[in-house]
Amino acid sequence: MALDDIFLQKFGYIERGPLNAINIDPLQRGGILTDEARRALVQWGDGYSVCDFCSGVLDKIKKPPIHDFVHGALPEFLGTDEVRVTNGARESKFAVMHSMTVEGDFVVLDQIAHYTSYVAAQRARLNIRTVPNSGNPYYKTEPEGYATAIEEVIRESGKPPALALLTYPDGNYGNLADAKKVASTCHEYDVPLLLNGAYSVGRMPINAKELGADFIVGSGHKSMAASGPVGVLGVTEEYADIVFKKSPTHNVKEIELLGCTARGATIMTMIASFPTVVKRTRNWDNEVADARWFSEKLEGMGLIQIGDRPHNHDLMFFEAPVLFEISQRVKKGRYFLYKDLKARNIHGIKAGLTKFFKLSTFGVGRDDLKVVVDAFDEIIRKYE
Amino acid sequence: MALDDIFLQKFGYIERGPLNAINIDPLQRGGILTDEARRALVQWGDGYSVCDFCSGVLDKIKKPPIHDFVHGALPEFLGTDEVRVTNGARESKFAVMHSMTVEGDFVVLDQIAHYTSYVAAQRARLNIRTVPNSGNPYYKTEPEGYATAIEEVIRESGKPPALALLTYPDGNYGNLADAKKVASTCHEYDVPLLLNGAYSVGRMPINAKELGADFIVGSGHKSMAASGPVGVLGVTEEYADIVFKKSPTHNVKEIELLGCTARGATIMTMIASFPTVVKRTRNWDNEVADARWFSEKLEGMGLIQIGDRPHNHDLMFFEAPVLFEISQRVKKGRYFLYKDLKARNIHGIKAGLTKFFKLSTFGVGRDDLKVVVDAFDEIIRKYE
Repeated sequence: MALDDIFLQKFGYIERGPLNAINIDPLQRGGILTDEARRALVQWGDGYSVCDFCSGVLDKIKKPPIHDFVHGALPEFLGTDEVRVTNGARESKFAVMHSMTVEGDFVVLDQIAHYTSYVAAQRARLNIRTVPNSGNPYYKTEPEGYATAIEEVIRESGKPPALALLTYPDGNYGNLADAKKVASTCHEYDVPLLLNGAYSVGRMPINAKELGADFIVGSGHKSMAASGPVGVLGVTEEYADIVFKKSPTHNVKEIELLGCTARGATIMTMIASFPTVVKRTRNWDNEVADARWFSEKLEGMGLIQIGDRPHNHDLMFFEAPVLFEISQRVKKGRYFLYKDLKARNIHGIKAGLTKFFKLSTFGVGRDDLKVVVDAFDEIIRKYE
Repeated sequence: MALDDIFLQKFGYIERGPLNAINIDPLQRGGILTDEARRALVQWGDGYSVCDFCSGVLDKIKKPPIHDFVHGALPEFLGTDEVRVTNGARESKFAVMHSMTVEGDFVVLDQIAHYTSYVAAQRARLNIRTVPNSGNPYYKTEPEGYATAIEEVIRESGKPPALALLTYPDGNYGNLADAKKVASTCHEYDVPLLLNGAYSVGRMPINAKELGADFIVGSGHKSMAASGPVGVLGVTEEYADIVFKKSPTHNVKEIELLGCTARGATIMTMIASFPTVVKRTRNWDNEVADARWFSEKLEGMGLIQIGDRPHNHDLMFFEAPVLFEISQRVKKGRYFLYKDLKARNIHGIKAGLTKFFKLSTFGVGRDDLKVVVDAFDEIIRKYE
């Protein structure tokens, strides 16, 4: 194949189809840029733009105020001692797992942990022990499960796991486990706890110290209205020197961050959105109210909301026998729902799903949520 | 500290001072967005925008044409079998080092390797052996140095190093070593070679197969006119299954990539700029001619260009005794050069440097290069 003009034509500028749709994909809701971030994006989009101001350490840049953001605002926001901006929540998790362990150590994960927690542990060459949940329909993770898993690891390996992780909330059901109890349970065995807040940091109030977590990770593109990939990593003082250990040859560079992370539009959009993000977490009660209202409406049509009930998060998983039944007999088969929603400018339920799917109501607002509710209602009636 | 309105005011949208300056920072030249990328940025800026189109594997997305980009265009462009888009050149290097080794293995680096090569090796917990260069003024790395280093490692550890790395060009002097000979030297000992092309991929023609490299990494934000952080990783078929090994629990997810990498504006700006980037590498002879012309002009004023002579790359390192001498006696001291250049809207030589500094002429063009040359001339005359 030659890289000739005809071949190259397929690249270049490409439009984004669902840009102006009502997007209820949980991945997308918290990452929609604020107006400030959209302006920052244009201003800071070039390559490595932030490096113009750097004398060797990203988080020491005074102007733009990256230092104050990383060492002032974020520790306060996350309730933790030390923070760094990373290339994403998964990269934050790997940095903790890798620095806090040696190959072959055990890590305890909630069974419904995000796949990236499993993959990060595999990359760090750790053994994984999982904490089961209550299964269908609540999928509840109990703090005692952590004690059981830790004791199993001690029995098998002769020592406690190097780390435990709780997904808060998990990315499937939007369940919020009792993080405080999980933390105290882990601490009884001297096991530090990492809280995966990819769906909480930037959406709802969360404070690592109040919950007792030793590490907290968040996602800029998932929940902090930032252009990805970008995340945050909060570490308690006790472990900061381990996780942020510096290079023996390049003594200002932190090894686990490979010396530097977000140094362009990603961090600048995170900073641009930050005031709005802080304020929106204070509106969390209304977000939960919207989620519950929406869930009630869908349940009124025969769908069943799985996971915590009443629900405490915008991310919700539905079982939809009524839609599945339709998919069995209509021409478009299992794609009918995707297509009928698309025709109403609603995006975010994966094409082909009807029996089970997840969605998010975060920041959609009652007006647009009503559009979505009406769409489900119309679609179900249409095929009656 | 409270996250109140007054404190939050310092964040939000922030302007980028040197946005419209002539920027001769080597970090910045190759990362300036094309018009297409600037449009893509706005279109794809939201969080995780690309995920709307994903059914589980980023590089399998057909529309936008990420599959064709990653599996068609990039392998051809890099001259390699398998390619992935990563979060940057350093992340690419770590992925190779980590997957190709076990803790305690040796890696051979050219002594003038970028700091991130050292830090990536340290993160992978490897022993580093360096290949010295000829020192001042040419800093030339000879292929035989790799043989010597490899033999030392064999003597000490009983086996060859797991990997060798060549920085092509290095980021200080812009030297292009004889990569082909380095590759054949390494291969005589069955040592695979990684080429760090952060300053070549996207700037100049480079083909891993022609040079004999087993791995090649490039930087989107440094040299491919993409919004960072984003990079590429090319791997020869022989090692693809090792580097891109999949998770035992989540079988489409590649462990070293933590399952997924650039899934927003970063990859879409890379794709947007790609046609222009391919074409600009075909203009490389003119870029080298511009660099040599510029170097000759500065040498005419008493500066000395260090490194390869004649120079073969836009990245150049200068020793400037004439400027250092001025800094010793003027009021603004060592900041005079930065300030005097800034007054002429020229940015990119670090504030405080006068005796030694590096810069890049890539894509500046003769007209603006002449502005820079005239600026140096005026500044030197001003303080005579």
